[in-house]
Amino acid sequence: MTTTATTLKGQPLDKQVLDSMLRRRLFYTPSFEIYGGVSGLYDYGPPGCALQANIVDLWRKHFILEEDMLEVDCTVLTPHEVLKTSGHVDKFADWMCKDSKSGEIFRADHFVEEILEQRLNGNKEARGHKVDEAAKDDPKKKKKKLKGKGQEAVLLEDAVVQEYEETLAQIDNYNGEQLGELIKKFDLRNPATGIQPEPPVAFNLMFGTQIGPSGGLQGYMRPETAQGQFLNFSKLLEFNMQSMPFASASIGKSYRNEISPRAGLLRVREFLLAEIEHFVDPEGGKKHHRFHEVENIELVLLDRDTQLSGKTTPRTLTIGAAVRDRVVDNETLGYFLARIHLFLEKIGVDQTKIRFRQHMANEMAHYATDCWDAELFTSAGWVECVGCADRSAYDLTVHAKKTGAPLIVRQRLETPKVIEEWTVDIDKKKFGPRFKKDAKVVETALLALSQDKLEALSKDLKANGTVTLDVAGVADGKAEVSSDLVAIEFTKRTENVREFTPNVIEPSFGIGRILYSLLEHNYWSRGADGGDEARGVISFVPAVAPTKVLIVPISSKDEFKPIVRGLSQKLRALGVASRVDDSTASIGKRYSRNDELGTPFGVTIDFQTVSDGSVTLRERDSTVQVRASEDKILEAIQALTKGTKTWKDIQAELPVFESQETEIPVR
Amino acid sequence: MTTTATTLKGQPLDKQVLDSMLRRRLFYTPSFEIYGGVSGLYDYGPPGCALQANIVDLWRKHFILEEDMLEVDCTVLTPHEVLKTSGHVDKFADWMCKDSKSGEIFRADHFVEEILEQRLNGNKEARGHKVDEAAKDDPKKKKKKLKGKGQEAVLLEDAVVQEYEETLAQIDNYNGEQLGELIKKFDLRNPATGIQPEPPVAFNLMFGTQIGPSGGLQGYMRPETAQGQFLNFSKLLEFNMQSMPFASASIGKSYRNEISPRAGLLRVREFLLAEIEHFVDPEGGKKHHRFHEVENIELVLLDRDTQLSGKTTPRTLTIGAAVRDRVVDNETLGYFLARIHLFLEKIGVDQTKIRFRQHMANEMAHYATDCWDAELFTSAGWVECVGCADRSAYDLTVHAKKTGAPLIVRQRLETPKVIEEWTVDIDKKKFGPRFKKDAKVVETALLALSQDKLEALSKDLKANGTVTLDVAGVADGKAEVSSDLVAIEFTKRTENVREFTPNVIEPSFGIGRILYSLLEHNYWSRGADGGDEARGVISFVPAVAPTKVLIVPISSKDEFKPIVRGLSQKLRALGVASRVDDSTASIGKRYSRNDELGTPFGVTIDFQTVSDGSVTLRERDSTVQVRASEDKILEAIQALTKGTKTWKDIQAELPVFESQETEIPVR
Repeated sequence: MTTTATTLKGQPLDKQVLDSMLRRRLFYTPSFEIYGGVSGLYDYGPPGCALQANIVDLWRKHFILEEDMLEVDCTVLTPHEVLKTSGHVDKFADWMCKDSKSGEIFRADHFVEEILEQRLNGNKEARGHKVDEAAKDDPKKKKKKLKGKGQEAVLLEDAVVQEYEETLAQIDNYNGEQLGELIKKFDLRNPATGIQPEPPVAFNLMFGTQIGPSGGLQGYMRPETAQGQFLNFSKLLEFNMQSMPFASASIGKSYRNEISPRAGLLRVREFLLAEIEHFVDPEGGKKHHRFHEVENIELVLLDRDTQLSGKTTPRTLTIGAAVRDRVVDNETLGYFLARIHLFLEKIGVDQTKIRFRQHMANEMAHYATDCWDAELFTSAGWVECVGCADRSAYDLTVHAKKTGAPLIVRQRLETPKVIEEWTVDIDKKKFGPRFKKDAKVVETALLALSQDKLEALSKDLKANGTVTLDVAGVADGKAEVSSDLVAIEFTKRTENVREFTPNVIEPSFGIGRILYSLLEHNYWSRGADGGDEARGVISFVPAVAPTKVLIVPISSKDEFKPIVRGLSQKLRALGVASRVDDSTASIGKRYSRNDELGTPFGVTIDFQTVSDGSVTLRERDSTVQVRASEDKILEAIQALTKGTKTWKDIQAELPVFESQETEIPVR
Repeated sequence: MTTTATTLKGQPLDKQVLDSMLRRRLFYTPSFEIYGGVSGLYDYGPPGCALQANIVDLWRKHFILEEDMLEVDCTVLTPHEVLKTSGHVDKFADWMCKDSKSGEIFRADHFVEEILEQRLNGNKEARGHKVDEAAKDDPKKKKKKLKGKGQEAVLLEDAVVQEYEETLAQIDNYNGEQLGELIKKFDLRNPATGIQPEPPVAFNLMFGTQIGPSGGLQGYMRPETAQGQFLNFSKLLEFNMQSMPFASASIGKSYRNEISPRAGLLRVREFLLAEIEHFVDPEGGKKHHRFHEVENIELVLLDRDTQLSGKTTPRTLTIGAAVRDRVVDNETLGYFLARIHLFLEKIGVDQTKIRFRQHMANEMAHYATDCWDAELFTSAGWVECVGCADRSAYDLTVHAKKTGAPLIVRQRLETPKVIEEWTVDIDKKKFGPRFKKDAKVVETALLALSQDKLEALSKDLKANGTVTLDVAGVADGKAEVSSDLVAIEFTKRTENVREFTPNVIEPSFGIGRILYSLLEHNYWSRGADGGDEARGVISFVPAVAPTKVLIVPISSKDEFKPIVRGLSQKLRALGVASRVDDSTASIGKRYSRNDELGTPFGVTIDFQTVSDGSVTLRERDSTVQVRASEDKILEAIQALTKGTKTWKDIQAELPVFESQETEIPVR
């Protein structure tokens, strides 16, 4: 298991160098930077935007198209009542604490985490260990942003070190009160002011707004795309011709008003979510009919019990074994964990930097009964990129209860079900006039009685012709019911239809976090090991690369222009994204720029092209070039971008071309 | 020119029937319907979502890829200061007026429009004309939702009719005060209460929110995607290697808190915008290097002057002629109008239902110097679906001024420019100590002087050794400047670089409005002319159809299953979206359902398939079927969906298959 952030080639990752390159190449940039920026908001420039679109496109193919999911596009604006019912108004909050002296506001769990880590590092230093800032293997990302003196070389007792480490291993499991106790117990102080912050208070993470001109309707920007899918459940079931199980899916922006976002693309206030709501019958063990296709896939799993014991060492299991041993609760949950793994693999995530971590009880969202996160290892530690929660029947149940809408499945029973039970039969014509305004209350009380109680009442009623019930809400708390009004009998009936509220398994993808992790995993530095100046390369797989082919004319002479234009058009017709660089920079510079952009292939048009129509094709990672006719090269590009051939295949087929990348002068 | 909404086949369009079909088939549905809904908010179900994705995909290819535009993805959340500078905080408003009795709130222009139209209809009725509700040919969509007695058959004088019609022709040109005057002048009353509403007041259309935990940062949900593109201008220019002209583009949700949205998908509070910002040198007449490719395209144009004369009759011109005659201001604007037209044609908009209407002066957004809307004719009249505005240098200028960021282009001059002018040279070492705290103010005043004034001062200074300036902000409003501090000379210098702020041409697409208009334009009713029950069909072109192929097994027997699965997989590999309908409904019912969904092709798997591997291919509009081997049919589908062959070609190639669509029983 990795413990230090590294590049694709195992070099230590210099995050500053990478970030500066990503911003220079406009993968992303702080929003409103000329106005000083707003923390937690970022814009994607052309390469970031294309990378995001390619990840989303692959996601859509891997999940939605592969399994005929029903994609929907619901609104971000959501009225208060919906999010009140779903529990978000009351419970979708983080704990924040305030420094009463400076007015600074901290997210309480991050504050505790940071100070404890400073102390642990100070202890290591005091013991003469070299402290590697990047060498973090803890469940959550680091910020290292508290201003003030921070880490000092202070020796800690072994028992204290152990206590701190155990606290950190379950940092996500504390509620506000417990975080407040930790602050007091460990005397955690804001380095900037030297005082303990005030006790944590809940801060709701939703952005509020008013809908309509009179300001009467309180609304929020949705914190997840899920609610729109739940509210449309009955319509989707109908669209799916009443067939179960099925999944809906949605890709869209969601919003969380983070208390103090300071981790670049990893903690933002506006982000793209891709969510699946898989609706499944809660009976029958939540089997999945395609589970056999994935059961041999190995996953790295860090379960709840391991974390609660203060450890962070995961184990590797096939998903088949994990479900069999009940490490993972059921097949459907297991199926999606494996599918998530395959998706991350497909887009080029480093396989040694993925793990699945189970949520602890207090850490889970209010709607979840179980949850596993796919975490990717980055310079900020392990980062939650995909959540896979079992929301049980929570959401459909609360919305149905609130609105009266039947968010249920009606299923014809193959063998009808015979039900024998004590039932109450009320003669409403007489019952109403007798009890007048109390009629409803008495009726409700009668219908709520248990089977045992009904059996007893039936006997009494037959014996005495009348019984007295305890009914809260009527005059003296009693109601006398006689046998001319009510019959209580043991009856038998047959049910042909079963009604149930489906359970929901929800894989939820934070596209921005995946995108950033992918950048770190695919980045490396060319020439860093030799004597040359290091040059950045991002080795995207072709499918996600923002641009697949760079077209480089060696000269800006007029005779090159129609060739460049023709090649562009042919690539466009093949559906291959290309860009022309006809600037006056050297060929080497132009390729370097595109190595930083992660462009996998380059075609050079040189003087030989003008005479014989041949062009060269360069592969980014090896910088090897081959030369052939334009048609052959186009064929090779198509095979490479579709993934039907590898670069090794092409090298075996076409003659290698020798050139001196950096020295060819232009103009 | 069309005056009545019709279907694709020229039948009168029954909007109620269409809407009910679109909602039944889940193209769209009111958001939060089980909670009673929120006006102006809609969700797209699976077919609507796919239709939207296909329109966006074609848009991206037609504009972004075709012209190497720089796509960006900026945040919806926008801080106050940005939108204050852009003018949206002060000016992005509609006029609303309130009924003081009922508290009802109206959008003032819609209120005036609706009452006047009711009176005009009442007049027609009084004169014995039949009033066709759908027969509207006015510039804006109708709502017909004012509650109360409404239209009455009351005769109007001819002069009054003319005045009303002229008012309606320029209804978009009135400001709040003028709308208030119209309400008084024509005595327009709310039918529900019989009173005139209060004078119109401005209502800002942006949704506000607070960013961050302390509530200190006022923000808004963006009303357009443009601002993010402007703020990143310098970075985009750098990314484009300083090359001009270029365009950025963005596809994203935008938000407008409409006063009283009541027109389905045509007036919503949350919508998908696709916007292009084309940055162009303001000098040289805004030529476009690809204008010759479009100059012969004919457009239907309704210019400003025609509307101000109270008319709504457009004229048809080639865009070449329109630019030559200055009906359209310049080539770049003209180029984009033609490209917009081609895009609308490509996705299947009815060519007889497009016109381009120029904005009148008061109607234009605060940032625009000229604007043409592409309007599509629907059951709600002419609907603005694409705006194409010349924003001049407005946005870049205001943001540069506010932030000091140089949102400009620096261009090396081929022939250096010689500048001769009076300049001020200040000896700062002496100037500062002399004026102390006033130094900055006096310096600014000196540098702000006109050339004439400088020439005069130079003479005075030489003659007297000192001059007295009027300087607001210093002690007595005067400052004495002597020749030891300042020299004013006539100088000559050479500039090699020209600096300019680009102008912006902005085509802006309301995807939801285009999508709804497309539904109306492609809808028709099969069998409506004959004796059969009418059945809805949407004749989407294959490129935008949500699903391209329906797979229909004629029986649910096990032997059909592997064939269905295999065919699905093959279509998926070809990138063709398909769906299986293996329900127990009759073949005819299943095809009818998919005609309503606009699925262009259907493949039936029957008993012959099991024996000889052949399948049938059905075309939606003609319902004609051909029969061939699976491979041949797959080839045909690929050609049809790519647009390389038409159905006529396929019919000529493959043998027609006769069947009785509706009568084949299943199971």
